[in-house]
This record gives sequence, structure tokens and C-alpha cells, in this order.
Amino acid sequence: MSHDRCLYSNMVALSPVLVLTYLSYFHSASCHATVPNMLNVHLVPHTHDDVGWLKTVDQYFYGGRNDIQHAGVQYILDSVVGQLLQNPERRFIYVETAFFYRWWKNQPPSMQKAVRQLVDQGRLEFVNGGWCMSDEATTHYSAVIDQMTLGLRFLNDTFGPCGRPRVAWHIDPFGHAREHASMFAQMGYDGFFFGRLDYQDRTNRIRTLEQELLWRASESLEPPYADLFTGILPNGYNPPKGFCWDQSCDDAPIMDDPDLEDYNVDDVVQRFAAAANSQAMAYKTKHIIMTMGSDFQYENANLWYKNLDKLIRYVNTRQANGSQINVLYSTPSCYLQELHRANLTWTLKTDDFFPYADDAHNFWTGYFTSRPALKRYERVSNGRLQTCNQLEVLGGPSSRKGPFGAGDSETLREAMAVAQHHDAVSGTEKQHVANDYARRLANGWQHCQVVVSNSLAALSGSSAGRIYCDNLNVSACPLTEASKKVTDIHAHSSVKTKIWIEEYFFNRVCVCVCVCVCQFVRATFDPATGLLDSLTNLETHSFLFPFLNLFISLYLLIPETLHLSPPLSFLHLFHDLFLSLPLPPSAPLSLLPQTPELQEVRQQFGPWVSQVIRLHSNSKALEMEWTVGPVPIADGLGKEVITRLDSSIASSGVFYTDSNGREVLRRKKDFRPTWDLRQTEPVAGNYYPINSRAYIKDDKDQLTVVTDRSQGGSSIHDGSLEIMLHRRLLHDDWRGVGEPLNEMSGVFPLGLVVRGRLLLSLTPPALAADAHRPLAQENVLQPLLSFTEGGPPPGSLLEFSGLQAALPPAVHLLTLSQWGQDSLLIRLEHQFQTKESKEHSVPFTVNLQVYTQYTHICTWEPLAAKPLRKPLGDPSMWEVILTPMQIRTFILRVAPRR
Amino acid sequence: MSHDRCLYSNMVALSPVLVLTYLSYFHSASCHATVPNMLNVHLVPHTHDDVGWLKTVDQYFYGGRNDIQHAGVQYILDSVVGQLLQNPERRFIYVETAFFYRWWKNQPPSMQKAVRQLVDQGRLEFVNGGWCMSDEATTHYSAVIDQMTLGLRFLNDTFGPCGRPRVAWHIDPFGHAREHASMFAQMGYDGFFFGRLDYQDRTNRIRTLEQELLWRASESLEPPYADLFTGILPNGYNPPKGFCWDQSCDDAPIMDDPDLEDYNVDDVVQRFAAAANSQAMAYKTKHIIMTMGSDFQYENANLWYKNLDKLIRYVNTRQANGSQINVLYSTPSCYLQELHRANLTWTLKTDDFFPYADDAHNFWTGYFTSRPALKRYERVSNGRLQTCNQLEVLGGPSSRKGPFGAGDSETLREAMAVAQHHDAVSGTEKQHVANDYARRLANGWQHCQVVVSNSLAALSGSSAGRIYCDNLNVSACPLTEASKKVTDIHAHSSVKTKIWIEEYFFNRVCVCVCVCVCQFVRATFDPATGLLDSLTNLETHSFLFPFLNLFISLYLLIPETLHLSPPLSFLHLFHDLFLSLPLPPSAPLSLLPQTPELQEVRQQFGPWVSQVIRLHSNSKALEMEWTVGPVPIADGLGKEVITRLDSSIASSGVFYTDSNGREVLRRKKDFRPTWDLRQTEPVAGNYYPINSRAYIKDDKDQLTVVTDRSQGGSSIHDGSLEIMLHRRLLHDDWRGVGEPLNEMSGVFPLGLVVRGRLLLSLTPPALAADAHRPLAQENVLQPLLSFTEGGPPPGSLLEFSGLQAALPPAVHLLTLSQWGQDSLLIRLEHQFQTKESKEHSVPFTVNLQVYTQYTHICTWEPLAAKPLRKPLGDPSMWEVILTPMQIRTFILRVAPRR
Repeated sequence: MSHDRCLYSNMVALSPVLVLTYLSYFHSASCHATVPNMLNVHLVPHTHDDVGWLKTVDQYFYGGRNDIQHAGVQYILDSVVGQLLQNPERRFIYVETAFFYRWWKNQPPSMQKAVRQLVDQGRLEFVNGGWCMSDEATTHYSAVIDQMTLGLRFLNDTFGPCGRPRVAWHIDPFGHAREHASMFAQMGYDGFFFGRLDYQDRTNRIRTLEQELLWRASESLEPPYADLFTGILPNGYNPPKGFCWDQSCDDAPIMDDPDLEDYNVDDVVQRFAAAANSQAMAYKTKHIIMTMGSDFQYENANLWYKNLDKLIRYVNTRQANGSQINVLYSTPSCYLQELHRANLTWTLKTDDFFPYADDAHNFWTGYFTSRPALKRYERVSNGRLQTCNQLEVLGGPSSRKGPFGAGDSETLREAMAVAQHHDAVSGTEKQHVANDYARRLANGWQHCQVVVSNSLAALSGSSAGRIYCDNLNVSACPLTEASKKVTDIHAHSSVKTKIWIEEYFFNRVCVCVCVCVCQFVRATFDPATGLLDSLTNLETHSFLFPFLNLFISLYLLIPETLHLSPPLSFLHLFHDLFLSLPLPPSAPLSLLPQTPELQEVRQQFGPWVSQVIRLHSNSKALEMEWTVGPVPIADGLGKEVITRLDSSIASSGVFYTDSNGREVLRRKKDFRPTWDLRQTEPVAGNYYPINSRAYIKDDKDQLTVVTDRSQGGSSIHDGSLEIMLHRRLLHDDWRGVGEPLNEMSGVFPLGLVVRGRLLLSLTPPALAADAHRPLAQENVLQPLLSFTEGGPPPGSLLEFSGLQAALPPAVHLLTLSQWGQDSLLIRLEHQFQTKESKEHSVPFTVNLQVYTQYTHICTWEPLAAKPLRKPLGDPSMWEVILTPMQIRTFILRVAPRR
Repeated sequence: MSHDRCLYSNMVALSPVLVLTYLSYFHSASCHATVPNMLNVHLVPHTHDDVGWLKTVDQYFYGGRNDIQHAGVQYILDSVVGQLLQNPERRFIYVETAFFYRWWKNQPPSMQKAVRQLVDQGRLEFVNGGWCMSDEATTHYSAVIDQMTLGLRFLNDTFGPCGRPRVAWHIDPFGHAREHASMFAQMGYDGFFFGRLDYQDRTNRIRTLEQELLWRASESLEPPYADLFTGILPNGYNPPKGFCWDQSCDDAPIMDDPDLEDYNVDDVVQRFAAAANSQAMAYKTKHIIMTMGSDFQYENANLWYKNLDKLIRYVNTRQANGSQINVLYSTPSCYLQELHRANLTWTLKTDDFFPYADDAHNFWTGYFTSRPALKRYERVSNGRLQTCNQLEVLGGPSSRKGPFGAGDSETLREAMAVAQHHDAVSGTEKQHVANDYARRLANGWQHCQVVVSNSLAALSGSSAGRIYCDNLNVSACPLTEASKKVTDIHAHSSVKTKIWIEEYFFNRVCVCVCVCVCQFVRATFDPATGLLDSLTNLETHSFLFPFLNLFISLYLLIPETLHLSPPLSFLHLFHDLFLSLPLPPSAPLSLLPQTPELQEVRQQFGPWVSQVIRLHSNSKALEMEWTVGPVPIADGLGKEVITRLDSSIASSGVFYTDSNGREVLRRKKDFRPTWDLRQTEPVAGNYYPINSRAYIKDDKDQLTVVTDRSQGGSSIHDGSLEIMLHRRLLHDDWRGVGEPLNEMSGVFPLGLVVRGRLLLSLTPPALAADAHRPLAQENVLQPLLSFTEGGPPPGSLLEFSGLQAALPPAVHLLTLSQWGQDSLLIRLEHQFQTKESKEHSVPFTVNLQVYTQYTHICTWEPLAAKPLRKPLGDPSMWEVILTPMQIRTFILRVAPRR
């Protein structure tokens, strides 16, 4: 069998979002035959290999620190490949390319050849195939696309079309985002399977046979452009009870020596038939899927396969006696093929799968906020990676090897990819693993700094030393503190790189040009409490009064005795077992030194919460910089801190949150669109992930909050919007981590102090997107500052832009990075939804030649959607159309630089 | 490479004890080269697979009940073979043929072929090779020889000369018996390795570099007939600390990606060098052995081999930088070869390695008695197997398939072989596993009953139904209880099978012909207490007065709190943390109905201990039938019960115990022959295993106690001999079992009641062996009773013997069993030691043709010892000489029966 099996005729295409050389085409040659009219049970051997969780990604790969958890991915892949080679009937799927890539590069050519053959024959199938299985609640779409690109590119380069995953496979993330489904659809996946959803939702879907459905994942993209078949796995991602044959399980093996006391073939066959029949009652077709594996399983694959071989043999043998069950080794693609053949119509779903509760009082909504410092660092690192990528392209080959030495963007790219894992930026890992993710990002940035310095040297013509003050978040930068005069370089991530001199202000996070602070926004404060009491948009005359901002501490009331009995708090979970106390303003309002560019007001709420409210002259948003911590625990109670905005907006129980920083979903308190909710947690059960923004509105006003990281939030009362900022918890929540969320470090021995920024925009609803779309994008991709001592060298270029002309405001250059030696990867996106902006929610035509003045484009590869998608009809070879929320991807072939 | 590698020129021979077609000849072709003058570290990958312990042998094989312990031998062999095939450098040894056999028969021919090649090339080497790794303290030599035969025969039949184990390997048994070493020497092993010895002994040997030695294991056999090189492994049977790379271990793997945070090659190499150098200090040569494995390891052999491959590569690479360490994959044979090449003289040892203490207060002497009912049942089963074997031969082919259906001796043979395991008859297994051993024996006996019935039908000419009353130990037999007249058949195990009619007496264990009870022995009792007070041998006029027999309960004083802190009681262990209380006679002496054949006296010691003392008319021994249990535990204290005989013998701290039922060793209180003992446990530290007899003596008298099972015993006071009978203990002893020794069952819900029999012989020392040798042998091989309702059918043969003439009293037919279709296995032994009997301790010549009147012998194969052994010089082809304690083995080719 050859690659031909995996080709779709001779079409070569790119998917809209990813670079995939071939379109998905499902060929049945590698699937075992099924039996019509019997119940066909598709056994899918798989392992779920967290890219870090209780152990670091390195420890998981090698099997280090097995005292924490027995898991070694190198051995899993060794073992599975060996077992697949032994018996051509067997199948396996592999998911996490971060691990597979590492294993692959250690294999001798003979083994690589054998594995290629397994892939070509469909015996080893990649599913999902990104660098990791990303989190869906706390990730930003741009980082998710990057990590998927990294993994899928490796598979494509290594295995060609047969290595292409056809199925998205998010079996473990704790709830599912609509934007993820939209991305998967646009990446060309044929289907999507996951394991976790709200327990009430599942019960309902079992009853209505709707565990398999069609997800229409975008309100903006024309169907079926973002449609994705979605299957909910029957048992999370575990095997049915009693059929786990991994070394980590205790289930009885098949003991088939008839002379034996323990002979159990009849019992196993009977139990299996019962499990299969019971499962079949919950699905529509004569096919069911069983996930035969779990976390880090198959380290000794022989145990699984030996027993699965026997199971298949003994169960199918009974067909001669009238059994109607047919068992086979299968893969999600083979299963999916059978579902397609069934030719049914699936229920349509247009909302998402948040929040996730595993029972009445266990809502996994705490992790939306857990580890807020890590979540911020991941977001900052994303901006740095984009800057690094762009400057690597613009600076040319000397960016990687130049006056500042050898640098690379791969290290940060891989660190960012690993950080998207559903136990990474989610905050659901052990503390030492969280530290490891941060260390990787810091290390990646060190490599990127060299690229940036080299590139700026090439672009500016000056090799003067550059300092990157990485601790500006705590206002620390030795150079600027010691020096009176610095050269300040902004390498803007949307390819506007400006270099200029000016005074640098200490103790300020941002530096602005002089515009009157009163031009856009007015905020007033209650002289008695120092709290905000009104907010006005001076342009639109939007006015909120009363408008109150409170910090509230939730005291987690965990009786001493309860710490033994699950379920309890709260690395993942958040629930209503709390006493809610507003933190009192403890000091009179303090007005910081005012300048024409900036007005600042400081508020103090007790000894461990403070806030600075800022009005910038050039900004239409009100900035609220909060500082929380160390959260006191001397009383033995864990605490969660929220900030709440109470306004006069008549929101009627409705609020809006974004999905992975992109399209926005409507939320309604105590309500789910697809089933009749029985609300058991009035607060925790109404929390949703906020990746970049949330808002409430009425006919007149919309109050939008733009965040600087992923957080959890809700609107519990009409006119109110709350965001959880920080959490410190003293009990483990029995979801596997085995640690409380009690962050302390060398710098913060008394407990972590976290600082962050919310941007508030008050507008009429019709104008809101015009404000929050660019505001959020600028917040995600903030300027990178570097400093050079002394004045600029004579003759050096002080300002430049990589673009020949500005892009339309609706169009964002999502990705610009080096692809091959003579090729670039470029992604353009339309960043507005349909209907949200009169001015911007329309198609735009972009000329690809305009945007790369520092590169010479020779050709670009055509973009084509899947056969089922609608043709895009671009006006010309160089002009491409972007409709609302569309992302388009190109490989540009470029001439070597002069 | 072919079998030639394993042949010793063209000599074909039988070892004295076992049937092994070829003599041991060590050929170095399969050993990796070593480096002269460097420290050569022999890495021996191995697994230790208990043939039952925490799980049953079936559960271990399949990997069932992994909730108890993760272990599955089928997977170990799958995995190891796969790994050996991947890299020809790798080596593995396998030990337990009970498991290997089972795995082998499930393999397809292609796999069998591959494994044969591994064995031929010395990459897979069998060591020890018996059915199991037998216990040394509680086993009887005849059963040990049988189990070794079963395992080694399989290896020989399957693999030929290359499958022959050259090394005995008892890495786990809890102390080492001299008789085992003697048997191993006679079986032709080149050396013996073990792991456990007294901690003081080890310390001393490390100091004197005597962990490798020459064991002269018999006082009777002429050296070097029973000489055996013996090596004590450095670390039990575990790898050095920090180098366990099994899935069950947590040691860091070798992480050799230099880009990695966790890179540890330098650290591993440095730690390994330190471990090797430290170990080398305790041994004499430039070679050391490291056992790389442990209990049920290598289920996922890749983990081990992948890291060992790296270890060897990285350590040896350092030789270029001056390192003096050379690491290699090796086997015990290859290591032994290097020791032989060193051409050193080893210290001679003539005693044994009992008792075993792992520290000052942890003497493993409790298990000598643990599970006394199982120990008895194993002993009874041994007799039944010998009977079954002999009748299978004598009855001809219809024994296996005859009027009573199909029967076999294999089932019981395998059950007995399994029962020899060091966690079987030793009593050191979990309760459910002990039950499983008993079940296997019972099942084996069911198969043998058919053989016996068929054989007796063929021999007697009557197919009348036969009943075997298996519960006569509790005086229960429905047939004899319900019927007035039965036909009683004794199938005597020393090939004297008599059939006769008589009255059968209820409630009697033995039936005797009428001889005056006063002919040989007189016992007197104190009328006040009912206790024995004198014993007289009327023939020799040996007279003991005072002579006292007491039952003593040891109350184990385990404070409640101590149960958490190891080390404590007592499945394996026995120590002196007890209160010793004699059990008071609670009832006046009761004289049971007296007959000319038998006089009986009943003694009661409180509610749960009683004893019947019997004098049989035809016996020179006094029988003491004790009944103990249920041991009360309402006081929360575990108890051990001993019976103690206090006499006027001036024993001077010296006593004697047998080794595995054969040669006897001298014991001295608070003394060890090879080092200066610091005694820490005055009682437990003086206990030794008693397999068949113990005695004390002075110039005038010898008091010998013959036991009916293996037990622990000692002489703590001069003139005293004590035997521990039963134990019931409420705490686990932290030696892995995780259960207290608290035997209860359906029949004995309040606690196990055990009954047993001691036979006392009082003689002058010079005549003692003449009495106790046959007495012990008769006790081991008791008659089997079967019953037939009504009178014998007319014309049926009522009495026969398989022998044409009686053997000399010194010669015992140890084995007579079917070997092949036309061949028999026969073993003759001289059952006396040198010098212990004037009459019997001399060579005897036996004519092989005499002993088999029911078979027609055509030829027999020559017997030859190893080259280093002395030629035996038999007088003629059919006449063989037996010297004291010699065992000789023959295969007789027989003509088909008429």
C-alpha cells in the first residue's frame, strides 16, 4: 500500500487555517470490514499523553519522577510500535505530536521506515495531531492555531498525506469552545470527538440519542464552512468498566486455559456483550466506539493487545451461535466513515459546551482563573512570539545569526505550543509543572531576544546593545532606573516597528503621546468611599450612573473534616460553598501625579488588594490595573477574589463572552440553549470563560470589559459583570492533581501577588465592536520594549514599518513567519463578526503584494477549501477576499534577499 | 551457532540425581568478552517470579488480580523475548519452569523457533530450571527432587543441551539447607547463587571476602561428590540503589538528550562507578555481578533494556578517559566462568545457612511452623503421589484409562511441584493462595485416585468401586461409618501392596496386628497431673526420668501501637517478644479403651489443646497425637503453641536436626560454626527447621522425635527438645504479605484446628539411626487406604507386591514412575549416613532386575558422574553399588506389557 491510499484524487490544496498539502479524503482500505445488521463495536486502542500535568513534559517523555506518576511516553511509543508490527490486524491512534516528534528523532532509520509503513497502511493513525491537545477555556485562538500548525506540519513533512489527521480528538479538556470547533472545521477535520460534557447535558443526550451531532460553530462564516460533525464518546476516554487491560489497571485478563480454575472466557464475553448492548441503546447507528486506553496507557502495549486479540476472537466466535455482536480493531476515522455511511441527519448545535459540571456541585469553572500569573505570562509570550516571527522575516537570515549571536524562534514556538496544553495555561497542573512551563517560555524568549536584536540591528543599521526589561510588570528595569537617557524601541507586533526617542517615565507601564484626558472618557468617584460612581463616554454620551466597582473576596467555607471527602475545592472546580464579602476601601482615594497624557487614581482595599484607574489621553477605554495578593490564609480559609462592575444597564440576565478571543457567545443566567437546566450552583454554574472580553448591554448602552489574560466571569445580577482575578485554595479537589492551589514562590514566599489590567469600554451597542475589536487585539499583541543606553548611533534608522500600506482596520495580520528557506507563512483574518459593525462587518479585498515590502514575493500557493466548502472566488491571483471572521493562510515563495 | 556449543565432547551421561542427557560443559562462546585488569561488572537481567505468593500461580501467570499485586508472567516472557530479539547483545536468565512451560505451550511455532535460537545462542539462559524455586526449610528432599525433575525434563526435552541450567539460583528462600546444596551438586550444577543470609554472617563475610565459597554439603558422600561453588549475591537479588529501571521502580531513567533540563548521564555514570567500586571491595576477583531485576520485573522489558543499553554505552565510553570499569550484559554462568578462570581457592563451608535473620530482632524462624495444616497436607500428598506413580507403573497402561475412567499422575505431580515453592509449603503466602495450593493438591489427588483404582482393578482382577476416605485425619469416612463390613486395601508406597480383610475399627488412625503393647516401650504418667513422667525402651533398657511433656503457649505481646511500626510479627518471623505460659492439664488423665494392639491415653490442656498418647503393639515408638486449636484471640493477643519434652539427657546445649528429611546437622545453642555469634534472640535465634526428625543425646541415651510434617524446633535448655506446632497471629510482619497469620475457614470459623503426630524413639545413640531412619521414612510414606463395600469379589487377588524380593533395609526405592511409553524412571537411595549405624552405614549392591517383577526390563542407561566426580565402579551392568546417602537414578527401557 502506498501514499495513494491517502490522496484525494490529484487535488493539492491548503486548508483555510492550516498548511496541509492534501485535503482530507477518507479511504476505507485500512479499515476492517464491518458486518451489516450486526452491532459493530469499534475498539480504538489509544493513549492519552498529557503534555505536562503532574510531571513536566520532559519527565513524561522519559519516565522520570515515576514516584509522582508512573508514565513514560518514550516507552509507550516503543511498545505500541512493536505490538503493531507483530499483528497487522491491530490499530493504534496517536495524538500529541510534541511527544511523537521527540520519539521519532531518536529512532534509527530502520525503525522510522517501519513506522512509515504502519502509517501508510493505516495501522498507526494520527488524530488531532497538534503539538498538544489544547485547552479550550483559557487559550487564545492565535496560539492554538500556532500549536496545531507546529504539530501538523511535522506530521505532513514526515509522513505526507497518510500522516494527516482526519479527526479532531479533544477527549480530556474540561468543556468545549465553539471557536475550537470552528477552527477544526476550517482546518479540514472530518469530525471531532470529545469526552467531557455537563452531566445533565449528557443525560439528556443519551435520552434523545443526540450524543452525535452537527456543530455549526460560527455565526459569521457561511455554512458549511464552520460545520463539524461532533461525537461524544461513551465513557469519557476510558474503556468500559471491567475491560481495562493496561498495566495500570486491575481488571482480570482473559484467562482462556480451559483447565484453569480461573478460566473466564464465558464471563468476559457475556460482560462485554452486556456493555456493548447497553452502550448501543444510547447511539443512533449499528456502530459504537469504545476507547480502549486512558492516561499514559500502552507503556506495555502487549497487555492490551494480547487481551484485545482474545476478546475479538472469542466475541466474534459466538456469531456462529447467533450472537449479533461484531467486534473489530478500529480508529475514529473508520468509525466516522461508518457513521457517514449510515446517511442520517444529525441534530444541529450552535452554542458551546461550557460550563462543564461532572455533578451537581462540581463545576469546572475555577480553572478559568487558576494561576492568573501563568495565564498572563502565556499571553505575553504569545505577543513576543509574533514579534519574534515577524522580525525574523523582516530582518532576513542575519536575524538568526547576527551581531548578537545565534537565535531562533523554534524554542519559543515549542514552549508556546506546550503551554496551550489543557493542563498548562489552564492552570490545572502541579505547581512544579507550572514553573516548568514558565521556565520554558522564559527560555524561549531568551532565544527570541537574540533574533529580535539581530533583526533590529539589520533593520536599523545599529548594533548597539539592547536591553529587554522583562520585569516591567513589577516596574523593575535596572537600565532605565539607573540611566537618565535611553533609546526606546517599540517592535510592534502588527508589523509597525517604530523607533524614537523621548523621555521615559518611571513607574509607568505605558507611554503615550499628549492628548487631553477628557477627550473620550470621564470617570467620577464617590468622595466618601473613593469608589467609582459614574462612567461617561464623552463622544457618544453614553452614561452609567450608578456605576460601582467592588472587589469581593469569596471565603471558601471548607469545614476541617471535609478535606477528606471528595468532592471539594478547587484547582479545577469552583462552587458556591463560600461567604462573599466585599473588600472595604481602606484608604481615601489617592490621586497620583497627573499629566496631560495620563490621569491616575489609586484605590486601596485592605492590605492585599489595590487598584489604579487610569485615563489615557489617546484611549477611549478606562484602564483598571488591579493588584491582588498575597491572599491571606492565616484564618485557614482559602479565598477567591473577584472584581465586580455594577451598572444601570438593563441586561435582563443576559451577558456575552468571547470564545478563545474571537467570536462572541450570548449567555443567559441559569439557562442552557439545548436542555432544560436544573441550576444547582447559582454562581459557579453561571461562570464562563473570558479569553479577551465580556459584555453586558441593553438597547442604549454596552459595557465591554477587555481582559489581559483568560479569566472566569459572569453576570449574576442584572447590570452586573464580574471577573474572577485570583484564587488561593487550601484543599485539593480530587481531580488528580493532589495539591491545593496555593501559589508561593521565592519572590512571593507569603503567597503570589498578581497584577493585571482590565480595559472598560462604554458605547452604544452598535458601536461597541468598533471599539472592543481593536482594543482587544492591541491588548493581546502589546508592543515589545527594548532599551539602548545613550542616544541612537548616527545614521541609524529610527522608524520603519514592514508594511507598504496600512491594512484595513477589519483585517489583521494573524501570522507572518518564516516557513522554509525561501518561503513565508502568512495568515490574514477578518477580525469582525457579521452584523456587529456597520463599517467593518463587510468583506474586504486584500492585495498580498502590498504587505511585504521587506520581502520580494515570487509566487504564492493557491488556497482552496474542501470540496464540500463553497469556492471563495477571489478577484485575482494577488487579491484575496476576507469575509467576516474568515482566516486565510498562504505560503509565499520569496526571492532570496539582496 | 548450534547445540554443539552446549555439548561436552560426545559423552552422554546421567547425573546421579536427575535425568539430564548431557553433562555440564561451559562454553564461553555466548559470553561477552571481559577486559583483563579492569573491574568487570556483570549485569544480569532477571525476573523473580514466585510460583504463588500474594496471588495464586494462575493469577501470576495471567496477571489476574492485579489489584493485589501488579504481576503477569505471560507478559514478562512476551516482553523479554521481544527485547532479546531486538538486540543480540542483550541477555536474560529465566528460572521458574512452571511459568515458562505454560507460556511456551501457548506460543506459535514461529515464536518457539525464535526462542530456541535465543537459547542456542546463550542469549536466553535457564538457571535453576526446576518447576519452582523450592523452599529450603520446609521441604522434603523427595518432593524437591521430583519438582526439579519436572522442570529440568521439560527444558531438556524442549531445548536439548543448550537448555540445561548450569547454575542453581535460590535468590529468595529464607535461609539455605545443606541438603539442597548436596542435591544441586549431585544434579551436576556448576555453582549456586543465593541472596539471603544472616545479617551478621554477611557482615563477617564482607569483611573477610568470603561471600564466595565452596560448600561441602555432605558428610557422607566422598568429596567432591557433594561440593558446590556458592556465591552470595551482593544486594539480595535487587539492582544497586538508584539503578532499578523496571516499570515498578521510580529511579530516574537515563535522560541523554543534552538539550534537556533533566540531562543526567554524567550523574548516572558517576553513581554507577561508585556503586561498582564499593561492591568490588567486598569480593575477591576483578569481576562482580549485579542482579538487574526483582520480583515480577521485566513485564515491560524495554524500560530495563533501553536504559541498560545506555548505561553500558556511557560507562564504557569513559574508558577512553581512563575509567577502569567495564560493564557487560552477562549471566550467572558467564560470571562463574570468570571466577573459575581466576583460579582462586575458596573457603570451605560444611554447615548450613539457618537460621536467617535480617536484623537483630527479625529471625525468619516462624515460617518453619506457619500453616501446619498445609505443611501436613503437602507431606501426605507426597506419599499419595509416590503411590500413584508406582501403581501407574505396576498397573500398566490401563491405569491411566481403565474401568474407573481416565486418570493421570501429572496433575498431582505438578501440584506437588508448585507446592515446593518457597512461598507455598513454607506457609509464607496469603491465605487465599494457601487455599489454592491445597485445592491443587486435592484436585491432583482426584486424578490420581482414578489411576490407583484402575491399577488396583488390573492388579486384583476386581473392578468393585473403591472409596478413599480423605478425611480420616478427622476420623470421618461416610462409608466406614455407615457400613459394618468393608474391604480394606493398603497400597503401600514402598511397593508392598497388600490386600486383606479384617475388622475395621472406627475412630482409629492405624490398624495393627496383635503384638503385646509392652514389648518395646513403657510410658508412665503422674497420677496427679496426668502428665508423662517416664519413658523406657524395654529392649535397650534406655530410661528417662524425669520425662515431662508440656504444651506451652507463647502470648505475643504486641502493644496496640506497635502494629504500625515494622518490624513486627510473624508469618515469616518469630521472636522473643512473648510471655511463655505452660498450658495446665485441665482434666484427669483419661484412658481410652485398651486392646491388645493399642493402648491410648488422652490428655486435655485447657479447652483448645489435647493429646492422645499411643503405644502400638508393633511399634518401638511412642506416638503423641496432638490437637491444637482454635487458638483463642479474644484477648487480642496472637499465640504460638509449642510442645516441649524435658528429659534427663545431658545434652550440653547441643541438638540435632535433619536437613530436608535427609542428613542430620549438629546444632549448638547460641552458636554458629562460621562466625562469632552475637545472640539477640535467645529463643527465636536458636530455632531450626525440622523436616522429619530432631534429637538430643548424651553418651547413654538418644531421644529422637520424628515429625509428620516440617516444623520449627530447638533445644533451649539442656535435656529439652521443643517443637512449635501451631501459630495464630494478629499482625502482619511487613515482609510483603500484608496479612496476619490468622487461619480460619468454613470448617473452622473460629480458627483453624490442627492435628498432628510426633513419634518418639528412645535408644542408645549407636542404635538410634536403626530406629529413626525407617520410622521417619514410614511416616513420610504412609499407607493409602481404600475401601470397598462388601466382601472381595470371588477370584480377586487379595495381596501382591511389586517387588520380587525385599530391598536391603538401608536401600529405599525413592522413585518409581512412568517416564516414557516404554521407559521407567527409577531412583534408589541409601538412606543411612556414614557412621550412624553399624549395620546399615555400609555400601550395598542392588540388582536392578530384582525390583520390578511387574515390568520386563530390556536395557537401562548407564549412570556416570561428572568428570570431576569419582567413577562409581559398579560390579556389573545390572548390579549397582549404593554408598551411604547416595542417590542413583536410572531410566529403564521396558518391553510393552503382555
